[in-house]
Amino acid sequence: MIRTVDLIERKRDGGALRDEEIYALIDAYTRGDVPDYQMSALLMTIYLKGFSGAELAAWTDAMLRSGEVLDLSSIPGVKVDKHSTGGVGDKISLPLAPLVAACGVPVPMVSGRGLGHTGGTLDKLESIPGFSTQQPVERFIELVATIGLGLIGQTAEIAPADKKLYALRDVTGTVPSIPLITSSIMSKKLAEGIDGLVLDVKVGSGAFMKTEADARALAEAMVGVGQRMGRRVVALLTNMDQPLGRAVGNALEVRESIDILKGCGPEDTTALTLGLAYTMLDMAAKPTTDVDKALSDGRGLAKFAEIIEAQGGDPRVIDDPNRLPTARYKRDFLAPRDGYISAIDAQGVGLAALVLGAGRATKEEDIDPAVGLMLHKRLGDKVKAGEPILTLEHNDRGVDDALHRLTAAYTLSDEAPPAAKPLFIDRIGG
Amino acid sequence: MIRTVDLIERKRDGGALRDEEIYALIDAYTRGDVPDYQMSALLMTIYLKGFSGAELAAWTDAMLRSGEVLDLSSIPGVKVDKHSTGGVGDKISLPLAPLVAACGVPVPMVSGRGLGHTGGTLDKLESIPGFSTQQPVERFIELVATIGLGLIGQTAEIAPADKKLYALRDVTGTVPSIPLITSSIMSKKLAEGIDGLVLDVKVGSGAFMKTEADARALAEAMVGVGQRMGRRVVALLTNMDQPLGRAVGNALEVRESIDILKGCGPEDTTALTLGLAYTMLDMAAKPTTDVDKALSDGRGLAKFAEIIEAQGGDPRVIDDPNRLPTARYKRDFLAPRDGYISAIDAQGVGLAALVLGAGRATKEEDIDPAVGLMLHKRLGDKVKAGEPILTLEHNDRGVDDALHRLTAAYTLSDEAPPAAKPLFIDRIGG
Repeated sequence: MIRTVDLIERKRDGGALRDEEIYALIDAYTRGDVPDYQMSALLMTIYLKGFSGAELAAWTDAMLRSGEVLDLSSIPGVKVDKHSTGGVGDKISLPLAPLVAACGVPVPMVSGRGLGHTGGTLDKLESIPGFSTQQPVERFIELVATIGLGLIGQTAEIAPADKKLYALRDVTGTVPSIPLITSSIMSKKLAEGIDGLVLDVKVGSGAFMKTEADARALAEAMVGVGQRMGRRVVALLTNMDQPLGRAVGNALEVRESIDILKGCGPEDTTALTLGLAYTMLDMAAKPTTDVDKALSDGRGLAKFAEIIEAQGGDPRVIDDPNRLPTARYKRDFLAPRDGYISAIDAQGVGLAALVLGAGRATKEEDIDPAVGLMLHKRLGDKVKAGEPILTLEHNDRGVDDALHRLTAAYTLSDEAPPAAKPLFIDRIGG
Repeated sequence: MIRTVDLIERKRDGGALRDEEIYALIDAYTRGDVPDYQMSALLMTIYLKGFSGAELAAWTDAMLRSGEVLDLSSIPGVKVDKHSTGGVGDKISLPLAPLVAACGVPVPMVSGRGLGHTGGTLDKLESIPGFSTQQPVERFIELVATIGLGLIGQTAEIAPADKKLYALRDVTGTVPSIPLITSSIMSKKLAEGIDGLVLDVKVGSGAFMKTEADARALAEAMVGVGQRMGRRVVALLTNMDQPLGRAVGNALEVRESIDILKGCGPEDTTALTLGLAYTMLDMAAKPTTDVDKALSDGRGLAKFAEIIEAQGGDPRVIDDPNRLPTARYKRDFLAPRDGYISAIDAQGVGLAALVLGAGRATKEEDIDPAVGLMLHKRLGDKVKAGEPILTLEHNDRGVDDALHRLTAAYTLSDEAPPAAKPLFIDRIGG
């Protein structure tokens, strides 16, 4: 019989929890046998004292085992997924999953919704008319087996401990803890039954991790957990000092995703898609040159059309993106003076899109799939007073608030700023 | 509107809470408007990050104001109480309060019950036939006004925030925190409406604070809070490397208290009673020589008889201690070998008395007022194999368990140990 208070006291005093204690605790908490007031005290000790690698692996595995673990062993090949820690304009999952699947690597992708300044893959996919991300688990497995990918949302059966713990962390000041973030992400991802995982860990003004040191620590923790759990895990640290690509907003980002697969996407989102695809193919021991072929011969685009149709969506959006929802109004955000764009608060840009209706501040809010921002200028670009920096595509909601936030988010200077940081910062693991 | 999660995050990150935030939080928590799971996370940040002097004073004052604050302003003179952090055989309140009252210093004393290895003043008083520690507040004030002292238990109206917080700390690993202990003690004591407080902070194997550094930190925190709240507070650090005096157990300790007031008590408990009485008289600006007079001319003993009678007890126990409950059986605990008593685990001795029935392991247990231990040997004494170290006075319950614990608690050595540490270690404040 493990007394929860003994575990709290041990962590408080800098000691470590044993594997069997962690499994018993998470199991009891999921069943409601450990009260929230004890778990919140323990979470605070974890926040302030950290976890050893062994503790983190056991905690993650216990959360993973708190619910259903998908069995994809009937599908041949190395199943690989990608997870991003979230950024502004980060639509990479949409072109990436079909491109990698087109190369013969199965991609079982379970994604989340947007919250706060970052968008969510599910919201973007659902802006495609008819597209359903709510597929039964059997259908999801069938999609991966037949088409090579499936794109669904988290089910209630996957890692229920994480759902309960996340709600508690949200109200007890224990969200931004590297071990707790790591276990939350890794328990859900590894419950998908994948063999490998590529992590895109964002660093910068639009990321949850504002410094490279924090992002590196998170990446190392996630890679370490993957290794201890016998999975292939690689993390790329990538820059998020400005929004990714040109589009911020759900249907607008689908359009950009189609452009990427047509070979005419923005430079940065195309490069990030390819970089992540190479890493995933490498993990599955396939030649990375397959990626370039699948992009240039249109197989990636065809795979995207195939999965859209299979999940109930209208595949004609590929050839005719105007079938996607479109906002009624456009309004330019103009440069207030001559100068160089020397800094962009990407989180502020994300919040500007949110107030137009592209995102949600609380879980209950509905989103407007059509609205968002189309960016014309990037960090370091020279602008003239009155020149459009970006265009708001809106439905007459939140415009003043958005313009106010954008004015604060863009810094103009007289001198040309130093060159922007490279997109790819480092690679950890593998 | 203060969001509790903001306060948790600020403490977590090493910041400080403002006075008005602390008052609002304690008020909301007492009313049930802050959930336990948020308070427990905050308590853990306080445990691990501490409190500034200003935060601690505000937290203590907010707890004090969560309930009734006694108004003793109608009673002339400097009202002084004593509080001990708890030890084994610590019956000092019983002789001390009447002795100081006999010198003309009013002593409004609100005491607690025993829990774990330490006894409680209320349990000891209630071993006197008829004695009631449950007096209405009006009667308590009348006792202090007319007799010069009152001896009662905590009422539900005094510092209800402490009652609720203590229960939560008990199950969340946040009990042994110096700021939380300080605020708990000081809020209750200062709610008595006293002008001054003498603290007896115990150090050693029988105390909650095992090291002098911890005891000193606790003493300094309590004196600091008193100063910020405009009260006279002095702390004496005193040794608790062995049980105090000869008796451990409720009625047995009443007998020893009577002996002290008759001038024939053990050397250490007599010295401690006098030392604390001098400090209390000094605080009330009275000559300390009054204490010696009140002891030698029997006024302290008469005052004890007077308060026993006023609170419903049988004052004939003073002249005839055999009217106190007496255990049916005696059993000697014998020295297993020749040697010197080189160490005593006083906590183990307290637990031996507890298992005989003198104390309670949980709040719900009843105690047996008659049972306990009479100690014949002290630290450093030379003993012969088979010589009684102490005598168990018992009612045929827990004897084997007690003997087992005593065997572990006493260490005998061939060489004479160094001289025992002095009883009075230091004085802080005043």
